[in-house]
Amino acid sequence: MPQATGEKLWYIPDAYIPEKSSGGLTSHESVCVINTASEDALLSFTVFFEDRAPLEDILVVVPARRTKHIRTSSLAKGGASIPVGVPYAIEVRSDIKIIVQYSRLDATQAENALMSVIAYPVRSSS
Amino acid sequence: MPQATGEKLWYIPDAYIPEKSSGGLTSHESVCVINTASEDALLSFTVFFEDRAPLEDILVVVPARRTKHIRTSSLAKGGASIPVGVPYAIEVRSDIKIIVQYSRLDATQAENALMSVIAYPVRSSS
Amino acid sequence: MPQATGEKLWYIPDAYIPEKSSGGLTSHESVCVINTASEDALLSFTVFFEDRAPLEDILVVVPARRTKHIRTSSLAKGGASIPVGVPYAIEVRSDIKIIVQYSRLDATQAENALMSVIAYPVRSSS
Amino acid sequence: MPQATGEKLWYIPDAYIPEKSSGGLTSHESVCVINTASEDALLSFTVFFEDRAPLEDILVVVPARRTKHIRTSSLAKGGASIPVGVPYAIEVRSDIKIIVQYSRLDATQAENALMSVIAYPVRSSS
Repeated sequence: MPQATGEKLWYIPDAYIPEKSSGGLTSHESVCVINTASEDALLSFTVFFEDRAPLEDILVVVPARRTKHIRTSSLAKGGASIPVGVPYAIEVRSDIKIIVQYSRLDATQAENALMSVIAYPVRSSS
Repeated sequence: MPQATGEKLWYIPDAYIPEKSSGGLTSHESVCVINTASEDALLSFTVFFEDRAPLEDILVVVPARRTKHIRTSSLAKGGASIPVGVPYAIEVRSDIKIIVQYSRLDATQAENALMSVIAYPVRSSS
Repeated sequence: MPQATGEKLWYIPDAYIPEKSSGGLTSHESVCVINTASEDALLSFTVFFEDRAPLEDILVVVPARRTKHIRTSSLAKGGASIPVGVPYAIEVRSDIKIIVQYSRLDATQAENALMSVIAYPVRSSS
Repeated sequence: MPQATGEKLWYIPDAYIPEKSSGGLTSHESVCVINTASEDALLSFTVFFEDRAPLEDILVVVPARRTKHIRTSSLAKGGASIPVGVPYAIEVRSDIKIIVQYSRLDATQAENALMSVIAYPVRSSS
């Protein structure tokens, strides 16, 4: 039976949805997750801002033995979503171990720019 | 005698082969491996998708004391290869310790964009 | 009560403020911090150069339960700031645990280029 | 007395010096090092290739309390340097603890592309 791999708590300090897109592609960010386990993973996102209280408990399911590339523009809770053009940061908690990578495509100019990091994992004892 | 270094299990959550290329370069991804040991490393790739079962047991050899920059478009098993334009994720298992980095060149636009990460290593006890 | 997460000491070896900007965006670097704790974090930056003594003890506060995306051009001490077009490196010390990511937007050309890394954390025993 | 920080052994699997440059910038790679100690660090580079034996024992000094951003095109030993347009990989050994980041500017096209990673550290017991 395939087991869960990675960690349950991950952080991305530099998140930002560019305001503009030009050329053929659309500016966007993705939080990319692998769930290696034979059971679904339930993720809870917390979004940190510079000037207001965090937006908490945005839930996303990543099915067993699947990857999910989650657009940050799809993260919403009670009608509140992440504003564009505002610096923010992301915490991802999962009920089982997962692996998380963050990537941004900035298409503000006609030619796109890319950046990517493996999110920062916090080791748990369990 | 040079020893194996790194870890035996590595993950890349954000993999994607762009559909288009323009300008002088071709869009591609590379899984780049160092084998510091005096023996060959046998790698087994598992490819995770969003909407279908994983593609397992794609084998690649990295010779002793060599690097190999593996194009993901070359990964195939029984006639099945990785489709372009589809979000996926990569697991790399090796029989000896190695080090793994993932890079993508996106040449969708005339001017290219680059991203790179050291893959996420899972510590083993052996 | 939310607790501090991450590490207290982080390093970024490759820092550089590009001399020029063209197109719609300005070249810049950001040191992006998450403070998950219910108390403020006091950060002290040390800037290392290739050919002169380090610039030490530049202080920045990151409020409780907030992120802060700090432009390196804003880091100054006693009238001394970081010169453009010069290779340098950054140490970030904090009185409580934080998480740090570094990103650079290079707009030297009309079309921008991006790079980002999670800073290198040094594990502490406390 | 400031102490050495980081690790003594670091790896960069994906190294590559682009063959061409256009526009105002030159394609290049940098291995960026911080030496936090009050003594100089002596680094020994090993370069791994896909199809030939490694190039070993290329020596570089990073002075005490300084950073050094080392162009890979400057690494040479006995008249042998790193060829352009060839996939390779880098091992960095140091006699004291350091921190290492790798960055590449690809100016093959008129508009530049950037990528960067913190090199992979191998933990030592000493």
